Amino acid sequence: MAVRNKQVILKNYVTGGLPKESDMEVTEISIQLKVPEGIKDAILLKNLYLSCDPSMIDSMRKFETSYVPSFEPGSPLSGYGVAKVLDSTHPDYKKGDFIWGITGWEEYSLIKAPNQFFKIQHMDVPLTYYIGLLGMPGMTAYAGFYEVCSPKKGDYVYVSAASGAVGQLVGQFAKLLGCYVVGSAGSEEKVELLKNKFGFDAAFNYKEEPDLNAVLKRYFPEGIDIYFENVGGKMLDAVLLNMRIHGRIAACGMISQYNLDHPEGVHNLMHVVLKRVRIEGFVVTDFYHLYPQFLEMVIPQIKEGKITYVEDTAEGLEAAPAALIGLFTGRNVGKQLIVVSHDW
Amino acid sequence: MAVRNKQVILKNYVTGGLPKESDMEVTEISIQLKVPEGIKDAILLKNLYLSCDPSMIDSMRKFETSYVPSFEPGSPLSGYGVAKVLDSTHPDYKKGDFIWGITGWEEYSLIKAPNQFFKIQHMDVPLTYYIGLLGMPGMTAYAGFYEVCSPKKGDYVYVSAASGAVGQLVGQFAKLLGCYVVGSAGSEEKVELLKNKFGFDAAFNYKEEPDLNAVLKRYFPEGIDIYFENVGGKMLDAVLLNMRIHGRIAACGMISQYNLDHPEGVHNLMHVVLKRVRIEGFVVTDFYHLYPQFLEMVIPQIKEGKITYVEDTAEGLEAAPAALIGLFTGRNVGKQLIVVSHDW
Repeated sequence: MAVRNKQVILKNYVTGGLPKESDMEVTEISIQLKVPEGIKDAILLKNLYLSCDPSMIDSMRKFETSYVPSFEPGSPLSGYGVAKVLDSTHPDYKKGDFIWGITGWEEYSLIKAPNQFFKIQHMDVPLTYYIGLLGMPGMTAYAGFYEVCSPKKGDYVYVSAASGAVGQLVGQFAKLLGCYVVGSAGSEEKVELLKNKFGFDAAFNYKEEPDLNAVLKRYFPEGIDIYFENVGGKMLDAVLLNMRIHGRIAACGMISQYNLDHPEGVHNLMHVVLKRVRIEGFVVTDFYHLYPQFLEMVIPQIKEGKITYVEDTAEGLEAAPAALIGLFTGRNVGKQLIVVSHDW
Repeated sequence: MAVRNKQVILKNYVTGGLPKESDMEVTEISIQLKVPEGIKDAILLKNLYLSCDPSMIDSMRKFETSYVPSFEPGSPLSGYGVAKVLDSTHPDYKKGDFIWGITGWEEYSLIKAPNQFFKIQHMDVPLTYYIGLLGMPGMTAYAGFYEVCSPKKGDYVYVSAASGAVGQLVGQFAKLLGCYVVGSAGSEEKVELLKNKFGFDAAFNYKEEPDLNAVLKRYFPEGIDIYFENVGGKMLDAVLLNMRIHGRIAACGMISQYNLDHPEGVHNLMHVVLKRVRIEGFVVTDFYHLYPQFLEMVIPQIKEGKITYVEDTAEGLEAAPAALIGLFTGRNVGKQLIVVSHDW
């Protein structure tokens, strides 16, 4: 018996700046809730929660280079999600398993040759955490901070986009290690979260600061040891002026630059030489082998209330296009996710 | 008995772009060729060869930040040199020693509390090498390439300012390791040197290439693993477009930016994230503990003719201001040095 399968479709490749809601379309097809006869090593998923990630914009563009695969116009978007296995012809997955990994922006997905799905073992935390705190963003914060930033107790740490899916965790990890941590975000509400919920030592609203160099000097009179880079552009330029000798910059993303046809110029790279700074780009997929070790560290901390996580939830696939685009205007407070179904 | 001591004096702090010859002045004072009575731990040097280094420009400006000490207007410039000890009240140095380290731009220097001088042990190579191949630039190439670039056999290596004091060695080290090496320089003469004297696989004149991205794509169809950065600005921007995944950029200097009131913007830093690139600034002084190990490697290679070095020699302190400024216009071919005296 076929059921409705609502989908969020990419209508056309995004050109120029940011995607618009009208670049996507919510449509319906029908689907059988079984892996079709004769297809081996496939799983049929009921998608429960979907993640809105800034990097998805790269896949909405037609890239000539090969390091980011593009979505197919006319097909559903794809991204990280939490799902329940309804049917499986794959030996590693069975009906009833809960998993997280890259799935379709639709109610049900048939995944042939499933790859890099993680089975969810700990069900005593919110399942949405597996696209946030316990999923790709959590691993990004963990790998970026502990593996790329070479942090040590007492370091002066600055996090931009600090209330976002990754930033809120980087700040909490840094506090747990005994660092001094300052975050920036784009509204008073987010700044309050940073200070009162996530325990940052200080936080500021970058939109209220005409002189980023001055605000960084105010919060970091001794300079910055570690910058967890989520935004790029003018912020990076101001940070470079304030780095300490042997400072480290983990370049996780540059969200301020996605909406520009021509990215802003960064003028102060000479400070990389003068202060022997290391800037290192990284992607989380290089670090997934550390996932078990990450869970072992973080799950007890969640249960003890030492780590907290704020999510911004959009209800239903109809709300998905606006939620995704809201990432780039800073509309979301905390990790942006979409509930496809509350029913599992 | 007092003798003449010719000096190159900084007249005023350099403001704005590049220094001019008129920012310096050659004058004479007189000096006793002995450490004055009662001064302990001092040495009196006869300067033989002086080095022109791009980083000296930072000391010709009045810096508010503390990581580069400024020269004193009215006093001689200082920089790396090879000198002979004429008199000493310091237990580590005695009359007749040859040393290299930071000395004055003058015929004779009285150095109180000498610090970071290296005694020259191997006299069977040209003494000028101790401000080039066997001095700070050589150690810069060695540390930057082996310690910062994490090189391995078969890597695609690009060196800018490749015929300069550091670049010519980086290219030769990379060839010795079995890398594919391309260099750029600013004249046909320099390009010929790179290909025919230093054994680069290919070389190009960047001044003849209106599209730096295109020329890099031509020489690196597979992309660049290692970029040894000496110039900054537009070149760095083009390189970022051509880096391979997990590429490394050792940021040694950004000479193209010294003459600009406002450094050029670098627009392609998003590629640091996309391709997980590491950019690392370094200064040679962090690596001087490796100097004995460097000599042990490189001296046999010099003697076997496996490493060669090209110097550009200016005769006499009168020629020193023009030689220093010529660095920034690319006038020098190879390592720029000044002969203060042939007589030792």
